[in-house]
Amino acid sequence: MSERALIRWIRGRLGKRGGRILVDSGDDAAVVRVDGDAALLKTDAVIDGVHFLSGEAKPEEIGHKAIARSLSDIAAMGCVPTFAVVGMAVPRRATMPFLKRIFLGMNRTARRFDTCIVGGDLSSYDGPLAITVSLLGETRGLRPVTRAGARVGDRVLVTGPLGGSIRGRHLTFTPRVREGLALNRHYDIHAMIDVSDGLVVDLGHVCEESGVAAVLYPDRVPRNRTLEEALYDGEDYELLFTAAPEEADRVARANLGVIIGEVRPGRGVFLNGRRLKPRGWEHRFGGKHVPPHQNLPVNFWCGPEA
Amino acid sequence: MSERALIRWIRGRLGKRGGRILVDSGDDAAVVRVDGDAALLKTDAVIDGVHFLSGEAKPEEIGHKAIARSLSDIAAMGCVPTFAVVGMAVPRRATMPFLKRIFLGMNRTARRFDTCIVGGDLSSYDGPLAITVSLLGETRGLRPVTRAGARVGDRVLVTGPLGGSIRGRHLTFTPRVREGLALNRHYDIHAMIDVSDGLVVDLGHVCEESGVAAVLYPDRVPRNRTLEEALYDGEDYELLFTAAPEEADRVARANLGVIIGEVRPGRGVFLNGRRLKPRGWEHRFGGKHVPPHQNLPVNFWCGPEA
Repeated sequence: MSERALIRWIRGRLGKRGGRILVDSGDDAAVVRVDGDAALLKTDAVIDGVHFLSGEAKPEEIGHKAIARSLSDIAAMGCVPTFAVVGMAVPRRATMPFLKRIFLGMNRTARRFDTCIVGGDLSSYDGPLAITVSLLGETRGLRPVTRAGARVGDRVLVTGPLGGSIRGRHLTFTPRVREGLALNRHYDIHAMIDVSDGLVVDLGHVCEESGVAAVLYPDRVPRNRTLEEALYDGEDYELLFTAAPEEADRVARANLGVIIGEVRPGRGVFLNGRRLKPRGWEHRFGGKHVPPHQNLPVNFWCGPEA
Repeated sequence: MSERALIRWIRGRLGKRGGRILVDSGDDAAVVRVDGDAALLKTDAVIDGVHFLSGEAKPEEIGHKAIARSLSDIAAMGCVPTFAVVGMAVPRRATMPFLKRIFLGMNRTARRFDTCIVGGDLSSYDGPLAITVSLLGETRGLRPVTRAGARVGDRVLVTGPLGGSIRGRHLTFTPRVREGLALNRHYDIHAMIDVSDGLVVDLGHVCEESGVAAVLYPDRVPRNRTLEEALYDGEDYELLFTAAPEEADRVARANLGVIIGEVRPGRGVFLNGRRLKPRGWEHRFGGKHVPPHQNLPVNFWCGPEA
């Protein structure tokens, strides 16, 4: 099965922008009209062996990651997460204390971001632990920031250092909910995404949706270790966004982002004069390298089609 | 692991009615406030080997069931489903045509009830096919009908015949979305639920939440085969509701429901003078009888705690 092909096929059949759909499946979250108001809707799953290893991750970390990924997507729209429902498929051998600790980790992270878990569904089955979190968000009168608004001349910014999250931070990262809201509320942000698949891939999504190219300043990309990791590792969950030059300077002065590049005419992501190939995030659990996009959890919204 | 105990524990930690939460996890769907308006939120999963057998069910039926279960829960609140997001955990051996047919079945049912799938998430993994559908619903200015409003003297009604859905109808049932909305819009319905776990269990939920008892008229329960099946089989997805006697007669005259019993003071569900034990729906796929509540997919909202 080719996941990319299936995603493309499915996306062609999903609801399109227009009428009740304000932002469709081409972005971090869908924005829909509910009884007159705009609301955000997002679902995301974590699965043992794909997104974490239950033998290595603490149960609280598993719960945290399960909800923090969706929180990060609402953050990337510059909006406010409010309510969550949780579907848990649980292996029969799972113990009560283990599952309770997962729930507590999830609930603690939800509360930290004023999000309330209001219900869910639990099935035991013959399979690995899988947690699907669906989030509802609200706009509070703000315009959701899509991936499609980057303009030539914009600066590219990121909220924090990138790379190497596989060494543990992918289980403990802070979703940039407060930063995303502050950016949307106080600054004119043109386009935004969270870095889940890697800087080059996610910046590529912004470029593609906006019909522009981006040039990265190699010395400016904040990195945890190497530039290579900062460019290609995923699951950093920092926010990546663009704004006009003066606005970008204001953001940088407020310590809400670091300028790492600029938007140019054309297409693709460039560094030192060469176009970077979008390489997806590879699962490297247990030392196994899985070819990108083979084992990749793919969002209908952000399928690696770049 | 005791699922019942875990559900009870989790429910004790979920958001409670009050403030932004209009209906909490004790009902078919949560009702929350989003930017001032009430919205409904529901998640539900179907898993190969638990809720269907991929070797026996048609792919379109699997997709249908995955979304129709959640549609039925919104129907049981007398409200309007609007948008869905879908999480799919897919075994690596699954083929494109199989997955496409599942999606088409799901999408056809969604559209039939004016519900738009706006996004989702896809992971391939080492496990059985699992589909988690999360639904957003709106109230259109109506009051959501909870399980908690049944009053002594009410009549108990059901929208259609019960029992025996395991012989195939659990894959092809019609969620009573139009009936639920018509009942809520044109009649004074006091309490409502969908029959997913079985008539006795689900009527028991209404009684417990409302603080009342119910007496069934044995000759009036519409059944597909035996009374036993009508009482205890699950997955009929007909709506079960209560209304004052004159209102119940109006509903019956409009062919929107059949009167099958009445609400009395006390607690429990009675038939022929004896109290019926709530026996949950048992999975009987492949001829295996699994003890109730062991293999039972349990909703945080409707855990078999009666």
